[in-house]
Amino acid sequence: MFWVMTYLVGLGVLFSLIFAYYNFRKGSKMEHGTPTMQDIARSIQEGASAFLKREFSIDIPVIVVIAVVFGVIFTPWAGVSFLLGATMSSLAGLVGMKAAVIYNERVANEARIGVEKKDPSTLGKALHVAFRGGSVMGLSVGGFAMLGLLVVYILVGMALQFANTENLIPTTSWVGLRFIVFPQVLACYSLGCSAVAVFNRLGGGIYTKGADMGADLVGKTELGLPEDDPRNPAVIADCVGDNVGDVNGNGSDLLESTIGAVVATAVLPTTIYTAALNTSAPLTESLLSRLMEFPLAFMGVGLIACVLGIAYVLLRKPRNKLSRELNISLWSSAALIAAASLLLAYFFFNGQDLTGIDFRFGWISPWLSAISGIIAGISMGILAERYTSEKYKETQKIAELAKEGPALVIVGGTSSGWRSCLPACTVLGGAIIASSYFSGIYGSAIAAVGMLSFVVSTVSVDTYGPISDNAGGIAEMTQLDEEVRDITDSLDSQGNTTAAVGKGFAIGSGVLAALAMMMSFANGEGNGGVLNIINYLALGGAFMGVGLMHWLSGQMLNAVCHNAEQMVNEVRRQVRENPKILTGEVKPDSSKCVDICTKSAIGEMKKPVFVSLLAPIIGGVVFGPLFVGGFLLGTILDSVVMATSTANSGGAWDNAKKYIKSIKSSLVQEFGEARYKEIHDASIVGDTVGDGYKDVVGPNQDIMIKMMATISVIMLPVMNAFNLISLILK
Amino acid sequence: MFWVMTYLVGLGVLFSLIFAYYNFRKGSKMEHGTPTMQDIARSIQEGASAFLKREFSIDIPVIVVIAVVFGVIFTPWAGVSFLLGATMSSLAGLVGMKAAVIYNERVANEARIGVEKKDPSTLGKALHVAFRGGSVMGLSVGGFAMLGLLVVYILVGMALQFANTENLIPTTSWVGLRFIVFPQVLACYSLGCSAVAVFNRLGGGIYTKGADMGADLVGKTELGLPEDDPRNPAVIADCVGDNVGDVNGNGSDLLESTIGAVVATAVLPTTIYTAALNTSAPLTESLLSRLMEFPLAFMGVGLIACVLGIAYVLLRKPRNKLSRELNISLWSSAALIAAASLLLAYFFFNGQDLTGIDFRFGWISPWLSAISGIIAGISMGILAERYTSEKYKETQKIAELAKEGPALVIVGGTSSGWRSCLPACTVLGGAIIASSYFSGIYGSAIAAVGMLSFVVSTVSVDTYGPISDNAGGIAEMTQLDEEVRDITDSLDSQGNTTAAVGKGFAIGSGVLAALAMMMSFANGEGNGGVLNIINYLALGGAFMGVGLMHWLSGQMLNAVCHNAEQMVNEVRRQVRENPKILTGEVKPDSSKCVDICTKSAIGEMKKPVFVSLLAPIIGGVVFGPLFVGGFLLGTILDSVVMATSTANSGGAWDNAKKYIKSIKSSLVQEFGEARYKEIHDASIVGDTVGDGYKDVVGPNQDIMIKMMATISVIMLPVMNAFNLISLILK
Repeated sequence: MFWVMTYLVGLGVLFSLIFAYYNFRKGSKMEHGTPTMQDIARSIQEGASAFLKREFSIDIPVIVVIAVVFGVIFTPWAGVSFLLGATMSSLAGLVGMKAAVIYNERVANEARIGVEKKDPSTLGKALHVAFRGGSVMGLSVGGFAMLGLLVVYILVGMALQFANTENLIPTTSWVGLRFIVFPQVLACYSLGCSAVAVFNRLGGGIYTKGADMGADLVGKTELGLPEDDPRNPAVIADCVGDNVGDVNGNGSDLLESTIGAVVATAVLPTTIYTAALNTSAPLTESLLSRLMEFPLAFMGVGLIACVLGIAYVLLRKPRNKLSRELNISLWSSAALIAAASLLLAYFFFNGQDLTGIDFRFGWISPWLSAISGIIAGISMGILAERYTSEKYKETQKIAELAKEGPALVIVGGTSSGWRSCLPACTVLGGAIIASSYFSGIYGSAIAAVGMLSFVVSTVSVDTYGPISDNAGGIAEMTQLDEEVRDITDSLDSQGNTTAAVGKGFAIGSGVLAALAMMMSFANGEGNGGVLNIINYLALGGAFMGVGLMHWLSGQMLNAVCHNAEQMVNEVRRQVRENPKILTGEVKPDSSKCVDICTKSAIGEMKKPVFVSLLAPIIGGVVFGPLFVGGFLLGTILDSVVMATSTANSGGAWDNAKKYIKSIKSSLVQEFGEARYKEIHDASIVGDTVGDGYKDVVGPNQDIMIKMMATISVIMLPVMNAFNLISLILK
Repeated sequence: MFWVMTYLVGLGVLFSLIFAYYNFRKGSKMEHGTPTMQDIARSIQEGASAFLKREFSIDIPVIVVIAVVFGVIFTPWAGVSFLLGATMSSLAGLVGMKAAVIYNERVANEARIGVEKKDPSTLGKALHVAFRGGSVMGLSVGGFAMLGLLVVYILVGMALQFANTENLIPTTSWVGLRFIVFPQVLACYSLGCSAVAVFNRLGGGIYTKGADMGADLVGKTELGLPEDDPRNPAVIADCVGDNVGDVNGNGSDLLESTIGAVVATAVLPTTIYTAALNTSAPLTESLLSRLMEFPLAFMGVGLIACVLGIAYVLLRKPRNKLSRELNISLWSSAALIAAASLLLAYFFFNGQDLTGIDFRFGWISPWLSAISGIIAGISMGILAERYTSEKYKETQKIAELAKEGPALVIVGGTSSGWRSCLPACTVLGGAIIASSYFSGIYGSAIAAVGMLSFVVSTVSVDTYGPISDNAGGIAEMTQLDEEVRDITDSLDSQGNTTAAVGKGFAIGSGVLAALAMMMSFANGEGNGGVLNIINYLALGGAFMGVGLMHWLSGQMLNAVCHNAEQMVNEVRRQVRENPKILTGEVKPDSSKCVDICTKSAIGEMKKPVFVSLLAPIIGGVVFGPLFVGGFLLGTILDSVVMATSTANSGGAWDNAKKYIKSIKSSLVQEFGEARYKEIHDASIVGDTVGDGYKDVVGPNQDIMIKMMATISVIMLPVMNAFNLISLILK
């Protein structure tokens, strides 16, 4: 099946990258806006570049050091593969973000021209522009991720013969570590993607939320300026934040999720294979390679389907039914994938000797598992919608509580977020049970691949959101016609539902991929495929795992808080020292805000990143692999509830605030203007708290658990070679 | 060792109950306060009784039904034992609370008389009165809990010979369930205590916090009344709440923890014994009975030591160094226990054949495990202090953030609570590793017993706090001299540190006891002592466990929120309909508030209680015991972080508010009066959110996990006899 896989992935990568390039060029060539618009777009561009430069100055050395260590203690290929993963992840983020920055202005301009011409189809046209912009990120994520993986698979696996079954037995490196080269190299590629993702997602998240909260806390609350008012010194930083956090960070996050899922699924069979080698039910070599290549081929199919889905929407005549347009691209790809992957499963596994792998229903089993994953992902998205959309009673109830002041808004939103964990966990637990029922432990891994097979579509829609949002910001700052802002606002709000589905996929697939890595770990040399949680080391590890995850979350929230504080102080300082800023006579010093925010975000990001990279290694070297197994379980279990509750509480607070604004007239009529302001202010407190929850704490959970699981798999040989506890227990 | 155990426990129970009776009588005979004071005390008394009556009307039928079911499907003794547990728990709560209500008034009166006489030792004298009042609860908890357990042990175990080793093999009940009678009966006693505890703790918690938040949200914030102002209609309900929640609820909680730990430790060896029966390393019968009786004897020693410690303080001349007095009782008991239990371990295990139990260092091993537990408990208390006391920078930082408004207060407090989970989990994980290293899986169970061996002292101090608090409330409502209030305030604040240690013990011991139950479950018939979390059913269970725990927490928070809303509406209604209430010309209708609060609390409590009782049973009958094993693990892991983070966030918000008040003059000087009010208001938002966190969500975690673990152990025979998944997988 090697060639089938190679063709599918190769074609998918080719289509994706060409289409990304085409959309990128098309954007650059579009008409520029007014000179003021260009000015602001340039400031955003510069701010984003400044952030990335500083971020690279931190993460490049770290990545190089890790690559060298891997290269030295394992094999040079491990180091190269890690570097390649980091490069692909960075490239995708860079390209996608550059496109987003360009498209911000173009969307605003398209809306401006349409409004001027009174063109009735402006909304639909603007949607196409924004979606085209978003698709560059989506296509780059899929294209670059799979390009790198294919290169590693072909070069290391095939050309160097490491994927051959005779090489899939442990070797000993010159420093005396026992490991199997090929899965090790694949895991290193995945870790490279994760490392960049955590820097981008966390650094970008702290940046964007610090800027956002800073802009809101002083600008809106203290000074009474409207959203995105050009007199607010923190507004440009806020726009930069949308690009570095919501665009770049989100892209690397989903790239990392995808690779994490595919690699975990490819690595797992090698551990099953070696574990079963001397048993009565060994895996055949042909089945092993099929099991390894199936997730890659699946992603290849996914890429092609998504390219078709996106192209279909962009080639249609622009229509004003926004959410329908976005949904079409997502669901047409999904339908294509479901059909094509059934053929794929037949092609890969029909007629094979399936001994040693628990395929309960023959060749169709992995397809059933993948579909369970897709259904679970969609269900999680629907659940998120139920708990966060102002159309449903949970969020309306929170808005209702705003009448009793900010405390009950917080209590209500927190309660709602906590309660939302039960259905989400039930869906995930159900997906694990169902997918494993169909295909054994391979099942839950392939379920994650299923969820992520239309990553290109979800990232495109995810990126479309902040592009529209920023277009609105530019419209506001350049004081364009109010109708322009209305158009960008409706563009922005339409992405939310589809984005909720994307978030459900990110959490669900992240957890399943981390579990697959954990299973690889448990299957690894010396662990024997069992993780007995009654063992006191595993149990102690599990406690420390949940504790660490909570600590990391607290640390991230703190980082946002610090950053926001600094922005608040800076905005206050500027306004105090130069009162003409508020009258509009003097332009605020936006670049100073950008600079402070950048420094602070990068500084705050270091501690959680390093701790999460080092914790499993230190745990393993002190307490041994059993401890790490429990530790990983603890982190995964904690991350599910943390990710779900923060995403849903945060989303609900955000929408409760919007809901209150939308029913302003009836509230004013009932309670009067002053009381309305109190109610609205109470809802803003919830929204501000939710900013850090939903955009920093929540989305980083899945990256961190995958990173910790992957590094545990990679460093298992080290833990086996040396750990303190075995010396004590001897 | 049976007689040694019986004497120790018997003496301990006798001493405790006689001393409790003596202190109770002494309080009743003390001088009454002024007629207004008596009036208010009577209202509180009536409110508390009304609450209990309504609560009993719900919990008695539930308990009787459960007892009948157990009696029918297992053995009548199971039902009787369950009823006895419920009775003992209720009795301890009733007696202790009755004493607290009496002592509220007496403490206020003692302070009043002292202030009138200008007696310099008033503070010390008032402390003695309050502590004597608190000790009634502490002594009743220890006395009644162990009395019931001793009765069950002697009657069912010894008199009926069920504790004999020939009877420690599975029998089949007439409905065809296979189980071992004696551990089953012991577990039922424990579940009886848990069932009452969850009603008391949760119902009381929802009551007290709803009343508190209701009184604050309208009274303090909207109407600008001071704390405990008699014009506030919700103030009496608030005082009632202190008694039914902080006194009665807390007492049953710790009673349940104690019995949970002792019973789990006594049951565990029977599962080890039966599992090892046909192996090469069986337990001797003598060792088995020693292992079962050791935790009971340990508690007997603890009771005696605590009686001595409390008596020592109460017999000393009253001194004004408050926290020293309270600490003396705690630490002298702790030192006594540490010394006496070393002798006990020697006496029980020296010279015994220790085959089959992993005592790494011979007879001293269980003592080492118990001491690890005690150290862990104390460390958790110290950590809680670090994260919540205004003396340390975490809480000061939150107070600092109040300058930026309520949103950052919430963010800061949440972050601090989350971060506090890592040290707490490390301590607990460390305790598990250390105690199990010394004594195998028996170790972590005996560590919980160690922590709880001075439960009488901790409950006495815990109860002393709300008694002093309520005395202050009475002083305020009857407009006594301000000095009286100052005295009760300092009494109240001094209990906090010691109470923090008590909270650490409750969480730590609760988790360890639940783990011991989980291990009994894993060791039980058909599970074989291994809980492989890689198994997909166990894994799915773990996901649903964390999800359910979060749902329960959200539900509890919601209940508080609903209750508070109703109180807010009632207070608003009264003030609106009769404005003379605010001028003090008309007395508010307090009893209406008490009534609403009672109804609401009882109503809101039902859903979480029933769900947590039924969830493991339904899970087991559908997905089988493996699923339940994972499920229990999930609930335990989630509860650790939930209990820690909510307790610490809530405590920190409370103290941050107090801290801001304490530095009021310097803040007013720096920012002016108006800005100070804003800062203080921001801190009140945190405090209000924290009320539900620290007094409802946090303290109920450990009860619920123990209840779920215990009911799983009890219902394991049912799950083994029938579960859906085994039919599907067949």
